[in-house]
Amino acid sequence: MLVTRRYRFAASHRLHSPRFSEKENQELYGKCNNPFGHGHDYLLSVTVAGPADPATGLVVNIPALDHLVAEQVVRDFDHKFLNADLREFDELVPTSENILRVIENRLKAHWSAAFPGQWPLLEKIRLRETRRNVVELRAS
Amino acid sequence: MLVTRRYRFAASHRLHSPRFSEKENQELYGKCNNPFGHGHDYLLSVTVAGPADPATGLVVNIPALDHLVAEQVVRDFDHKFLNADLREFDELVPTSENILRVIENRLKAHWSAAFPGQWPLLEKIRLRETRRNVVELRAS
Amino acid sequence: MLVTRRYRFAASHRLHSPRFSEKENQELYGKCNNPFGHGHDYLLSVTVAGPADPATGLVVNIPALDHLVAEQVVRDFDHKFLNADLREFDELVPTSENILRVIENRLKAHWSAAFPGQWPLLEKIRLRETRRNVVELRAS
Amino acid sequence: MLVTRRYRFAASHRLHSPRFSEKENQELYGKCNNPFGHGHDYLLSVTVAGPADPATGLVVNIPALDHLVAEQVVRDFDHKFLNADLREFDELVPTSENILRVIENRLKAHWSAAFPGQWPLLEKIRLRETRRNVVELRAS
Amino acid sequence: MLVTRRYRFAASHRLHSPRFSEKENQELYGKCNNPFGHGHDYLLSVTVAGPADPATGLVVNIPALDHLVAEQVVRDFDHKFLNADLREFDELVPTSENILRVIENRLKAHWSAAFPGQWPLLEKIRLRETRRNVVELRAS
Amino acid sequence: MLVTRRYRFAASHRLHSPRFSEKENQELYGKCNNPFGHGHDYLLSVTVAGPADPATGLVVNIPALDHLVAEQVVRDFDHKFLNADLREFDELVPTSENILRVIENRLKAHWSAAFPGQWPLLEKIRLRETRRNVVELRAS
Repeated sequence: MLVTRRYRFAASHRLHSPRFSEKENQELYGKCNNPFGHGHDYLLSVTVAGPADPATGLVVNIPALDHLVAEQVVRDFDHKFLNADLREFDELVPTSENILRVIENRLKAHWSAAFPGQWPLLEKIRLRETRRNVVELRAS
Repeated sequence: MLVTRRYRFAASHRLHSPRFSEKENQELYGKCNNPFGHGHDYLLSVTVAGPADPATGLVVNIPALDHLVAEQVVRDFDHKFLNADLREFDELVPTSENILRVIENRLKAHWSAAFPGQWPLLEKIRLRETRRNVVELRAS
Repeated sequence: MLVTRRYRFAASHRLHSPRFSEKENQELYGKCNNPFGHGHDYLLSVTVAGPADPATGLVVNIPALDHLVAEQVVRDFDHKFLNADLREFDELVPTSENILRVIENRLKAHWSAAFPGQWPLLEKIRLRETRRNVVELRAS
Repeated sequence: MLVTRRYRFAASHRLHSPRFSEKENQELYGKCNNPFGHGHDYLLSVTVAGPADPATGLVVNIPALDHLVAEQVVRDFDHKFLNADLREFDELVPTSENILRVIENRLKAHWSAAFPGQWPLLEKIRLRETRRNVVELRAS
Repeated sequence: MLVTRRYRFAASHRLHSPRFSEKENQELYGKCNNPFGHGHDYLLSVTVAGPADPATGLVVNIPALDHLVAEQVVRDFDHKFLNADLREFDELVPTSENILRVIENRLKAHWSAAFPGQWPLLEKIRLRETRRNVVELRAS
Repeated sequence: MLVTRRYRFAASHRLHSPRFSEKENQELYGKCNNPFGHGHDYLLSVTVAGPADPATGLVVNIPALDHLVAEQVVRDFDHKFLNADLREFDELVPTSENILRVIENRLKAHWSAAFPGQWPLLEKIRLRETRRNVVELRAS
């Protein structure tokens, strides 16, 4: 059984890579390359997999999951300029793909500690940048 | 090809298990343990799999599927207090996980009868309790 | 200028009036009269009116408004059975219309205290019971 | 990693097959069989799969994908009567299932040309006819 | 107090006026002038005004309102091609503005009969053609 | 009759006023005061009022309105950091209230030129910063 929980954060970013020239950056990222950045209301979906516990009827301890995402993602991402405020994006362009990878790394690093005893499987995470753009990662 | 059809019902429930003490119930279910129950507008998605019939261009007889869900789910769940109104929750805590399992059992028990001739495969069912909580079950 | 802020709470209710017979209650409230109640995810919109403060660029102190609504509405309404958990509905049927009137009374009783100095005008409040039903009250 | 991009088009259609009698058509397609057609706002989701390019942080060239869908789908489907305006539906009933198959064929026929160099995998396409009906096709 | 109730219907239309030349029609209505029509999922909101009845806690008899809109609007508009299926559009271009005026006329003609005894005031009606286009009419 | 048209732009901003100390800014604007800014997907609704033209059935020339908003708002606001990219916010804190006032000024300055002949009335404009925050301005 899969259980999905959703979280929101507002952040700004600028897509610009030092590997490319100004002109190449503009061609590659379009208006997302504007120098001062721009923002979005991101919607993050975290999906865990497992059987429902027969005693509680629950697949996952929701407050523990909420606490993990609040500590590892929302606190650092919400109302932030990703390029400047997060060390992971010193070298990494904050595309949705890379943001999702960073979130996956943060969740995995604290996953087992977040769920004492038996932990649920992290099945996939999904990031909606806008209504038109969604990125999804099946956790390995 | 997958075809998904969505249904809505409004219901109330209380999460409380006689296996646990009052204090454990409160820790486990939080405000969902409030004594008199509370409610949600549930959104149920039923997904069937199969090829489109070459003659009709349809994967599934939609009126037959609607009739099945109306009879087996919506009629009994809509505008009801799940703990008191449904026999399945006499012993079972009505978490989203358990609600989904009950719905799966009801659909499967009447699935082949609902589709005379050849019936489509029930691929998955999905229940959105709120915008933040979604549970999904891949039908076995 | 109008500023609207939205809040959510999940609650259950039963529409039943002691003034009417069983049969009249069923005709009047339909399936909302089911004995054990049922639930909804309510969406409350609070709209205040006033000029933007030239120094801050704000019409209203949002944290103060959030605190007022959290204390006077969400804390008592969220995850509750309105008929049993709120004294206002001892005598009053918890239709959307009456819920809105109760919320208005609660907000008005603490309005001036919530905004020390000069308080903004409460322009209107609006309650969405479901996607199909919305009730709105222009504050007098 | 999966990247999904969404597109909208408004179109009308009539479900009617010359293989069946008038009566059979009415039983089969219900009010979708009304003689002059009717319309929907369709939402198309195109999902591609692949690794994020380490240099750009992107899975797919979004402007190239947008251009492909605009040329092959939106231009011909938006604000059109599918039965009369598209040759593919001369013989084919424009059910959501068949519309999706036609869109898949059009995208695949121009897929490799749309992405010079290495092209991403077309993972699945999905068509939402209304909030209640969704069809999905895992690209083979 | 205002109570708003929402209804949906899917319909197709073509914007074309015999008063103008082919070229003028194209300039005026753009792709909405395409010869075979196209479709939308319309969302109709009907708002009534009045005090809540002290006995019932209701502003309006919702089943009576639903019956009126079903009979006068949804039955004739849903799954129809407005230009061909409704006599009102023999001479009238089915823009959202004109559709709304036709709906207003139909509701008003049967308003008092729909609510035996005292009828509520029809405050406004509103038609959402797409997420981007909304038309609203304050009933006179 | 009122016609509302909706537009979207993604932008980032930082709420910070030189009139206040660092501490006052933090108390006043909370996490919106974070030094590097953050972003939102703004939704702008422009409402015009007037009678439908009997010949065209339209209240307003939609392409002319779209062109005006594209030129005066979306081009300058979309994918921008409002504090740095727009001269109006050199001295003005980019709260939703002030953004709305700037948009109103820009639309009004070019309103009559946008609609040769007779222009429709600008009735109100509305800006949704997030699902929870909406600001509305009745055009004077």
